[in-house]
Amino acid sequence: MNKIEVTPIGVIHTCFDTKFGVPRQPNLAPHSWGEIELFPPYDDPASIDGLEEVSHIWLEFYFHKVGQRDTLSVRPPRLGGNQKLGVFATRSPYRPSGMGLSVVQINEIRIVDGRTRILVSGIDLVDGTPIIDIKPYVPYADAQVSAINNIAPMAPTMLTVVFDAEAESRVQLLASGFNYDFRTLVVEVLQQDPRPQYHSDDANRVYGVELCGHDVKFTVLGQVVTVLRIE
Amino acid sequence: MNKIEVTPIGVIHTCFDTKFGVPRQPNLAPHSWGEIELFPPYDDPASIDGLEEVSHIWLEFYFHKVGQRDTLSVRPPRLGGNQKLGVFATRSPYRPSGMGLSVVQINEIRIVDGRTRILVSGIDLVDGTPIIDIKPYVPYADAQVSAINNIAPMAPTMLTVVFDAEAESRVQLLASGFNYDFRTLVVEVLQQDPRPQYHSDDANRVYGVELCGHDVKFTVLGQVVTVLRIE
Repeated sequence: MNKIEVTPIGVIHTCFDTKFGVPRQPNLAPHSWGEIELFPPYDDPASIDGLEEVSHIWLEFYFHKVGQRDTLSVRPPRLGGNQKLGVFATRSPYRPSGMGLSVVQINEIRIVDGRTRILVSGIDLVDGTPIIDIKPYVPYADAQVSAINNIAPMAPTMLTVVFDAEAESRVQLLASGFNYDFRTLVVEVLQQDPRPQYHSDDANRVYGVELCGHDVKFTVLGQVVTVLRIE
Repeated sequence: MNKIEVTPIGVIHTCFDTKFGVPRQPNLAPHSWGEIELFPPYDDPASIDGLEEVSHIWLEFYFHKVGQRDTLSVRPPRLGGNQKLGVFATRSPYRPSGMGLSVVQINEIRIVDGRTRILVSGIDLVDGTPIIDIKPYVPYADAQVSAINNIAPMAPTMLTVVFDAEAESRVQLLASGFNYDFRTLVVEVLQQDPRPQYHSDDANRVYGVELCGHDVKFTVLGQVVTVLRIE
């Protein structure tokens, strides 16, 4: 079959500096944000005319940190990394097309110097992800409320996140410098247990997640994540 | 930005022989069906292992009859073809990526001689459409029930479809030869008013839709579609 060449229409700048910590589905971290920069000629406001009537969009993007993979089976972190599933039965980033799909919320559309920027939240994309297409969410077609997925029937169980005194004072300080709730973002990201699927249960092991240029250090004991410090 | 080369993982064989008559969103014609043929190596059942736990899938496909278009504005048929909208505010097939996105229902997964076929319904894809990726529908992430789209807030108003005596007897005869409800498919397709967006209101004008190898001839008067004959 003939190959198809697609050219990104834009790129998304996000709070997720690295893959580690990126939520495994959109909307699990409503405070995660991104800014879509459209490339010429698509940065012309004509290309998004009408989007102000729409609350959510689909982002079709390229998993640029992973690329394209020919493997037929994947081991979803959700299933503990032990069970294999067919790639087409999962949303794994390791896929033949290398293409991802996420519905995100539009926060604001900005036209600066005649160029369009779309601010979105509830994202699960690493910084610098190429955007292949943007499509409006069409609730009557896309919201299949009777759909069943027994592999991922509901959002994963969330851990409890607590802050050590040092981390708490630091996050409060940072929060005043951001125009959004950085502390809530930290909680939303960490409560999903971003540890790699093959991790020891060593409660002393210190992990780090890069968020908006800050390195958030934490440990996990049972169902509790403790934020040690923010560097 | 670098181009990305994607290779189709399969092709869908559908009841829609031509673009004319294809529903404008999935699930508007629940009786429309298609059969996904996966290409090697993806036809190996390992690639869909687990999909039996899932009721709906996303098809990411290539609008091969249209290709890729650089236009920033489109005129959606839904708005009568008079109003321009930005391409990223619509689901128009005329888009830079040439990529389409539809959620469809899985009816059956067949393994024949070790090769996978996926039978789906509620489709809006023309016969021979290349499939770029298949992803399971994840209700907790994908069904955004609070999403708002004021451009397409609900399914379009449906026309009434009636059959002339000749067409009625012919469709009954055909129905007995198909293992699905061909008459209902005809109704579902025609009630969406498949006429081109620039059409005269000539009630004598005879249109034809190709469905499953049959040419369905009809006229439209006001809100009523009359099926004249099926050839």
